[in-house]
Amino acid sequence: MSETSKGARTRQRILHTAATLFSEKSFEQVSLRSIARNAHVDPALINHYFGSKEGLFAAVLDEHLQPVQLEQRLGVDPVDRWGRELVLKAESVWVSPAGRAMLAMVRRAFAGNPELLRTFVTKALLERIASHIDGPDDERRLRASLVASQMSGLIVARHVVRVEPLASLTREQVADLVGPNVQRYLTGPLTPS
Amino acid sequence: MSETSKGARTRQRILHTAATLFSEKSFEQVSLRSIARNAHVDPALINHYFGSKEGLFAAVLDEHLQPVQLEQRLGVDPVDRWGRELVLKAESVWVSPAGRAMLAMVRRAFAGNPELLRTFVTKALLERIASHIDGPDDERRLRASLVASQMSGLIVARHVVRVEPLASLTREQVADLVGPNVQRYLTGPLTPS
Repeated sequence: MSETSKGARTRQRILHTAATLFSEKSFEQVSLRSIARNAHVDPALINHYFGSKEGLFAAVLDEHLQPVQLEQRLGVDPVDRWGRELVLKAESVWVSPAGRAMLAMVRRAFAGNPELLRTFVTKALLERIASHIDGPDDERRLRASLVASQMSGLIVARHVVRVEPLASLTREQVADLVGPNVQRYLTGPLTPS
Repeated sequence: MSETSKGARTRQRILHTAATLFSEKSFEQVSLRSIARNAHVDPALINHYFGSKEGLFAAVLDEHLQPVQLEQRLGVDPVDRWGRELVLKAESVWVSPAGRAMLAMVRRAFAGNPELLRTFVTKALLERIASHIDGPDDERRLRASLVASQMSGLIVARHVVRVEPLASLTREQVADLVGPNVQRYLTGPLTPS
């Protein structure tokens, strides 16, 4: 095995271990030392790969949410379908086995460390979404943050609090119902008529 | 002082103490005994007034969110203004001093006891909102749950994760931007065109 692929496997093992631990305990309760011990690596290696515990947390979210893949969709789908496609894509992330662990992680960060989520959501998701929207910078950032308000609420109402009947709909039904509202935030008129 | 007003003051003191403790610790970590001790009442009195710890939690949320007051607005405002008014009303709740304590409480429940939130949101908010919407029962419940997806996401993105520029807007601006989307869920066409 080459050093590179061995390194990639070690990095992957650290990510997997961290995802499990962050979903079981809060960000503060999980030490780099415990992640290193569970992943059978030297703690210094975690700093080498991820810079810090914050960096590792962001990398775990990044790995599961695959924002680059999300962005590629935005490059392919017709503009007037983005709202629906964003909802479909997000739904497929949260219901996957990795998505459930990530949801637990996000819930814990939500209670204890929302600033970790802010950094990740802004850098990995909003700025990428904004880059595909037309218009002045301020307006593109505003539109992306409005999209975040609907997408995060969909996760909360459907997958965490499980409000009915929303929680029992198929993801296609949710995309039909919520998609048009996301679409207005992305490309519709924002000023009141 | 009459027995009734003394009872009302005791009940109020229990609610206030519980709100503080639930915002500092998780639902499980707060015991009825500790609430009773901090409120200087007999633990049996809490059960007398609220039935259980779950009942007390719901009563604290109910007191701060004032769903009855919210419902009264829905009875007064023109139907086509409800979306905007709901956003304005919710914003005024969350930024109040009591709202901040409640937000901490909700965040902790979100991480540990989402089913407590589900019961409260469904009974106190959704069923009341649904009762004002026209149409068959199933559709009214669906519309109310979609409203919940936007309103909860607004709280998350604006007041917890604090995504910019959404977090820095005035509540009037937020009502102008988000109101039309809430309005579609309440009274607009739900099927894709």
